[in-house]
Amino acid sequence: MVIPDADRDFLRQARVARLATASLAGEPHVVPVCFVLDSSTVYSAIDSKPKRVAPRMLRRLQNIAHNPRAVLLVDHYEEDWSRLRYMMVSGRTAILESGPECARALDLLRDKYEQYRTMPDFGRSLVIRLEIEHSASWHGAPRKTE
Amino acid sequence: MVIPDADRDFLRQARVARLATASLAGEPHVVPVCFVLDSSTVYSAIDSKPKRVAPRMLRRLQNIAHNPRAVLLVDHYEEDWSRLRYMMVSGRTAILESGPECARALDLLRDKYEQYRTMPDFGRSLVIRLEIEHSASWHGAPRKTE
Repeated sequence: MVIPDADRDFLRQARVARLATASLAGEPHVVPVCFVLDSSTVYSAIDSKPKRVAPRMLRRLQNIAHNPRAVLLVDHYEEDWSRLRYMMVSGRTAILESGPECARALDLLRDKYEQYRTMPDFGRSLVIRLEIEHSASWHGAPRKTE
Repeated sequence: MVIPDADRDFLRQARVARLATASLAGEPHVVPVCFVLDSSTVYSAIDSKPKRVAPRMLRRLQNIAHNPRAVLLVDHYEEDWSRLRYMMVSGRTAILESGPECARALDLLRDKYEQYRTMPDFGRSLVIRLEIEHSASWHGAPRKTE
């Protein structure tokens, strides 16, 4: 999966994205997530920010367990609508509970977000891996050729 | 559907939200949208901002035609994670093509977004109506009682 450089930069610099999943019955779900891009993979942690339910009961995990398809959206809003922009990447997800890839993903997340470096038990977080199969981007006005 | 006042205000003031839908096959989709809240209904227009495909072919409309369930997410990000916040509302959608409710929704959108007031053909936009059946909100830290 080759992502154009400009889109890759837009994705990489974003501090927050929205992760959409769906239940087997077709009930959509979307939550804001912190994430990190590594080549054509996106990682997001189930960290210890307060949750309304136990981590394993989180809708995103329940959905992914039954239906691995997911979409990650990054967008930019401002009142000059010619400057609106978004990018979505989609693919198959998996839950990483431990092991070298999980540990590496948590390291990458710590590198991007200093908030994670002091978060208790962050090293034991579950990780959602999204392998990007498709990407699409949109601009409010055509990009100028530079 | 009664939405707490603080959540209602948070939803009302937001300039952008993310609308998640899913195909019958369970493929999730999510796009940023402009929207307006009216009592327990959310309206969003398929306006004439540039689109990659004809309006009728938009994934959100194709999904809604087959599966009316949708979720609208509003979130606030900042680096102080105790101030993170989001709210999601979900329910059943319908497409409005014309008629008094469609016209009223477009008026409400023009009231909220001055950008719509000068947009060509905005008055002929399709409208997505989301009837809120459930709402949920989340804060990075407990709210203080005032």
